[in-house]
Amino acid sequence: MTTVEEARAELLRLRSSIDNLDAALVHLLAERFKCTEQVGRLKARSGMPAADPAREAVQIARLRAMAETSGLDPHFAEQILGVIIAEVIRNHEQFAEAAE
Amino acid sequence: MTTVEEARAELLRLRSSIDNLDAALVHLLAERFKCTEQVGRLKARSGMPAADPAREAVQIARLRAMAETSGLDPHFAEQILGVIIAEVIRNHEQFAEAAE
Repeated sequence: MTTVEEARAELLRLRSSIDNLDAALVHLLAERFKCTEQVGRLKARSGMPAADPAREAVQIARLRAMAETSGLDPHFAEQILGVIIAEVIRNHEQFAEAAE
Repeated sequence: MTTVEEARAELLRLRSSIDNLDAALVHLLAERFKCTEQVGRLKARSGMPAADPAREAVQIARLRAMAETSGLDPHFAEQILGVIIAEVIRNHEQFAEAAE
């Protein structure tokens, strides 16, 4: 049985790790959007469509497989990727409009 | 002016970087859920509530600030954190129910 103080100390320890992981996640996402911004400009310049369902299907299958091996809920991984891709496509469409 | 072949090669190069970043994101998220699973068990054992609005407010403010300095849209960072926290709370509630 842990005391209230012990539970509180353990909670703070875990939250410190979560904060470190969140910092890493934010910086990875920032880097990912730097890449997709380049993709958006390239697609707009080359007249390629903003969305690419075939690429998305491959990404989702790959991420679900990686999620399974790393112990992450594959459904959740797909949900997160969906939110990211929706934002990427929104950005791509803005580039395409600006290029018109 | 880039040729179609050049544009295609550049797209493949960028997608390869995006795939690497996605692999890192999945593994960071898996690690984050390992931490929050421990938080969930701790909270259930100690009778703490699954959600903690004060902690969430601090997390959101911190992530928005980090997003701004790293060039990520703060609104998008908050949206992603919202999806993650919703999943964490859902998991915490399952632990709490199992502990009852």
